Amino acid sequence: MINRTNREFLLVSRPKGIPTDDNFKLQTNQVPKVNDGEVLVQTIYLSVDPYMRGRMNGVKTYTSPFELNQVLTGGVVGRIIESKHDKFKVGDIVEGRLNWADYSVTSGKGLRKVDPNLAPISTALGVVGMPGLTAYFGLLDIGKPKAGETVVVSGAAGAVGTVVGQIAKIHGCRVVGIAGSDEKNTYLEKELGFDATINYKTENVKASLKEKCPDGIDIYFDNVGGEISDAVMSLLNFQARIAVCGIISEYNNTEPSFGPRIQRYLLNRSALMKAYIVGDYYERFDEGYKQLGKWVKEGKLTYRENIVNGLENAPKAFTGLFRGENIGKQLVRVRNENDEII
Amino acid sequence: MINRTNREFLLVSRPKGIPTDDNFKLQTNQVPKVNDGEVLVQTIYLSVDPYMRGRMNGVKTYTSPFELNQVLTGGVVGRIIESKHDKFKVGDIVEGRLNWADYSVTSGKGLRKVDPNLAPISTALGVVGMPGLTAYFGLLDIGKPKAGETVVVSGAAGAVGTVVGQIAKIHGCRVVGIAGSDEKNTYLEKELGFDATINYKTENVKASLKEKCPDGIDIYFDNVGGEISDAVMSLLNFQARIAVCGIISEYNNTEPSFGPRIQRYLLNRSALMKAYIVGDYYERFDEGYKQLGKWVKEGKLTYRENIVNGLENAPKAFTGLFRGENIGKQLVRVRNENDEII
Repeated sequence: MINRTNREFLLVSRPKGIPTDDNFKLQTNQVPKVNDGEVLVQTIYLSVDPYMRGRMNGVKTYTSPFELNQVLTGGVVGRIIESKHDKFKVGDIVEGRLNWADYSVTSGKGLRKVDPNLAPISTALGVVGMPGLTAYFGLLDIGKPKAGETVVVSGAAGAVGTVVGQIAKIHGCRVVGIAGSDEKNTYLEKELGFDATINYKTENVKASLKEKCPDGIDIYFDNVGGEISDAVMSLLNFQARIAVCGIISEYNNTEPSFGPRIQRYLLNRSALMKAYIVGDYYERFDEGYKQLGKWVKEGKLTYRENIVNGLENAPKAFTGLFRGENIGKQLVRVRNENDEII
Repeated sequence: MINRTNREFLLVSRPKGIPTDDNFKLQTNQVPKVNDGEVLVQTIYLSVDPYMRGRMNGVKTYTSPFELNQVLTGGVVGRIIESKHDKFKVGDIVEGRLNWADYSVTSGKGLRKVDPNLAPISTALGVVGMPGLTAYFGLLDIGKPKAGETVVVSGAAGAVGTVVGQIAKIHGCRVVGIAGSDEKNTYLEKELGFDATINYKTENVKASLKEKCPDGIDIYFDNVGGEISDAVMSLLNFQARIAVCGIISEYNNTEPSFGPRIQRYLLNRSALMKAYIVGDYYERFDEGYKQLGKWVKEGKLTYRENIVNGLENAPKAFTGLFRGENIGKQLVRVRNENDEII
């Protein structure tokens, strides 16, 4: 057995606001022994996702919080380099919730094989991974888009928003994206086919929405919460649907945020608001992976990745999400895909 | 043809806050001639309902606003005293949206025959009328109650809330009502079988909810909005459903009200919030009338009415809704049911 060292990131204190370096600690350990029924996965890509911020507070929400002084976990694409598990063999590419580390030992529970011939393996953390599924189920199951309807997406240039907008276009909708830079918005309009975009940092969102949604808003796919979502409310159409996917503008708040109560707006339009997490659709993941993969193959769904190199830069990549640094999926490349197995 | 005089209430100015006497004017007119295809209805009961407050503002919401200097309209139970319509004959008891007046001439559109042998005719404005249907569809279609779940109802002692609580009990739920007096709450517990109640005027609603909903809240049926609804949010269970039926605490506000943004709470529990008006279920009204009538007949659904006598007192009865004066359905008796037809 090879004696490998393993760098791993611990959460050592609870962040207040946007996390800082001293909330994290990179420590070096031996890779644990692989027992019967387990596999050893070598990390290739690490995913950083906004929902992880919630888990860094010491509060139970829809998931349990990260424990202090334990290794952080998140989406990982990696390679099996040792297997004592019937279903996995050395060389398999897999995706699962594993450690922020060079290596993870796992029972294989929740581990998914990724076919490197279908699409680049990094997409298993993005467009054909959790963010893609999140977009797919939220838009289709809650939003129920119909051709000709107006769909507004906030956080439009992120891993989820980019997929939401494109699926809405596939369904014949008019799509208006809200994002935080002209560069993002140019990408959304020129490369992804969004019909219109709003830069929330330089425009009056409410006025721009009014101008860019002349027929009102039928579906609002919400990744951000806060004032941007407030601005949507008075433009909802009758029987509008709001999918609440995330509130990235609020994850770093230490106090609840206040805004105009929304019941009045929902009531005036018989509107629906449904919050969800992708795990609510666990039983339908296969359907989602299949359809997303098909659209990618057909060229109907394109994507962009923002890649930071080096495990040591994972916290920086993570906090970049809250500074709006990424277009598309934010990843950390822990090692090159084609490096030899060590 | 008899020459009848007709008292009718006009809205002569837009209320600010709770309406006052000078927003209304009672004028006397001749009863209009009944043309072919029309009927003349003599008002017996007039319904006053919270939603009418919204129509008194000059703003289009889910319905068009009341026009200034026009006769107000609302739910009426009355008797046909002249008919040039194939489907209605003199003596028929009917329910429909008619004038706040002694008499209304109508084409019969939206007019429903009421069988006085099935239940007291006043119930066509309450438990087997619009408020009953509102409770029925909101609780069953949005709330989807399952036996053993906890249902919280605000505005619990009103025309809608009393029916919501009883239907929830029929479905085997634990029901907690929020109302504004001990007298109301005693009625809810002793006569309607609510499991627990909260007096929002004397109790800390959030603390009481926590105590009285030890298993959390699966369904929140919201008639009131505002701070009471804020208090519910942190107690929602996974996949909780909120039916937004009304916001009586806010109808008289001149400015939007502010509170903690709720997306965070919905997201932590994958919760649903759906607003509606009863008209959204128009196609299913017959089903609702039938089931409500059956429950009333079986004694599973009981009701109370709060009756003010005299058309001239209609504005007072209406504004009483916002002072919490009624237990059960608030009605105005314009004439006695058994008076001879004049």
